[in-house]
Amino acid sequence: MTIILYDIPSTYKENTFSPNTWKARLALNLKGLPYKTQWVELPDIEPLYKKLGLAPVDENSNGSPFYTIPILHDPATGVYVAESILIAEYLEKTYPDTPSLFPYDTLALQAAFVKASRSLIFAANQFTLPVTLVKLNSSSAEHIRRTREPLFGKTVEEILPTGEQAVVEWAKVQEEFNKIDGWYAKNGGEGSFLLGDTLSWADFVILSILLWLKTIFGEGSGKWKEIAAWNGGRWQKLLEELNQYTTIFI
Amino acid sequence: MTIILYDIPSTYKENTFSPNTWKARLALNLKGLPYKTQWVELPDIEPLYKKLGLAPVDENSNGSPFYTIPILHDPATGVYVAESILIAEYLEKTYPDTPSLFPYDTLALQAAFVKASRSLIFAANQFTLPVTLVKLNSSSAEHIRRTREPLFGKTVEEILPTGEQAVVEWAKVQEEFNKIDGWYAKNGGEGSFLLGDTLSWADFVILSILLWLKTIFGEGSGKWKEIAAWNGGRWQKLLEELNQYTTIFI
Repeated sequence: MTIILYDIPSTYKENTFSPNTWKARLALNLKGLPYKTQWVELPDIEPLYKKLGLAPVDENSNGSPFYTIPILHDPATGVYVAESILIAEYLEKTYPDTPSLFPYDTLALQAAFVKASRSLIFAANQFTLPVTLVKLNSSSAEHIRRTREPLFGKTVEEILPTGEQAVVEWAKVQEEFNKIDGWYAKNGGEGSFLLGDTLSWADFVILSILLWLKTIFGEGSGKWKEIAAWNGGRWQKLLEELNQYTTIFI
Repeated sequence: MTIILYDIPSTYKENTFSPNTWKARLALNLKGLPYKTQWVELPDIEPLYKKLGLAPVDENSNGSPFYTIPILHDPATGVYVAESILIAEYLEKTYPDTPSLFPYDTLALQAAFVKASRSLIFAANQFTLPVTLVKLNSSSAEHIRRTREPLFGKTVEEILPTGEQAVVEWAKVQEEFNKIDGWYAKNGGEGSFLLGDTLSWADFVILSILLWLKTIFGEGSGKWKEIAAWNGGRWQKLLEELNQYTTIFI
């Protein structure tokens, strides 16, 4: 009766890489709920929703249904729930005696925080996607080419900024980190988390992005070393401080 | 020794209209701190900063200094502070026995919330700015034309969407309200505020946008009536519930 987490596989040594599934893993780990991973290649996500009888999570901007990973299945209740924050909300309600992700009724602010932090992912995507592509299994890699390249109007490889453009675009990634650092700094004297001494979902949102970038670029890469040093080493310290929640259960 | 709030005047019957100065007023009103308004036309803001010896709040994207209203002057401490959230932080620290805007160490999340809600202002701006222009005093109106029209590449009047485009762009405003409604709904059962039963800065961020749109469009306008009815009347109800904080001290 172990909880099942559906995740996207890769050939990274951690296997898991998506920041969205990381958020669900971190939530499960914080709450100490045992779970196993079920791996799903990208083209198999939509068929999985249909097989399980799940409604799409949302619509894409063109009105087509949006299917996403992670999905969590809890055999104890029979429930399937998709999308990381909805998984977190489900776990919070179903297992109220475990550590809380949304203390002090902050769920609404935490949901808004997800939106506020998304521009970092957008800024980084052009650097990560071309690097990720070669680490995916072939069916997932082909799925990305088939669905994304028509939107980009170019190949995935061509979205990687080069030369002067790379400098400009990488500075935007740093600028996004600076903004988040500015938020953290507002609670600076009272603990290293966004709610001061109290760990919450918003810290996991940032941690999931750090884990993603560290995996994608590689711990020894110049890009990761830059990030680890930005903002007085805040991101490296946050990773170390929250290391206990980053075990990957497969 | 009354606190002074610097605000931008207009010919609206409320005089005040900027959502940013509204946030500072709401903070002062919640805390019950008496204040008077000092009116500053737009072209006089930069000279005021220089006269008072204040550093610009930030940089514009082209690197030029960014000067903004509101500015608060507290004669009890001699402090000048600009930008609404910094004003709120100042009041919070200086008058700790007044009602809190950032309960439970949520300042960082509240600061991120400001960013998350900003896309509503961006979406609405093209509808509001052309209407506001004719309600400003002439020096402020001329200042807007001189500084904004080169950025738009067209006149302020021309940014107002018309015909089918107006329908599309207005739907984006509604979509932004829907997102914020989704956040409120997450605390739906536990009170009408973003932190459930507890009023906080984030509610004032939304309230300031509502007060701005109500003034700009006019209470009897079709546009305001639409907004007031959206999301099950949530916005009209929020205005009514927080009406006690909306007194304008001039």
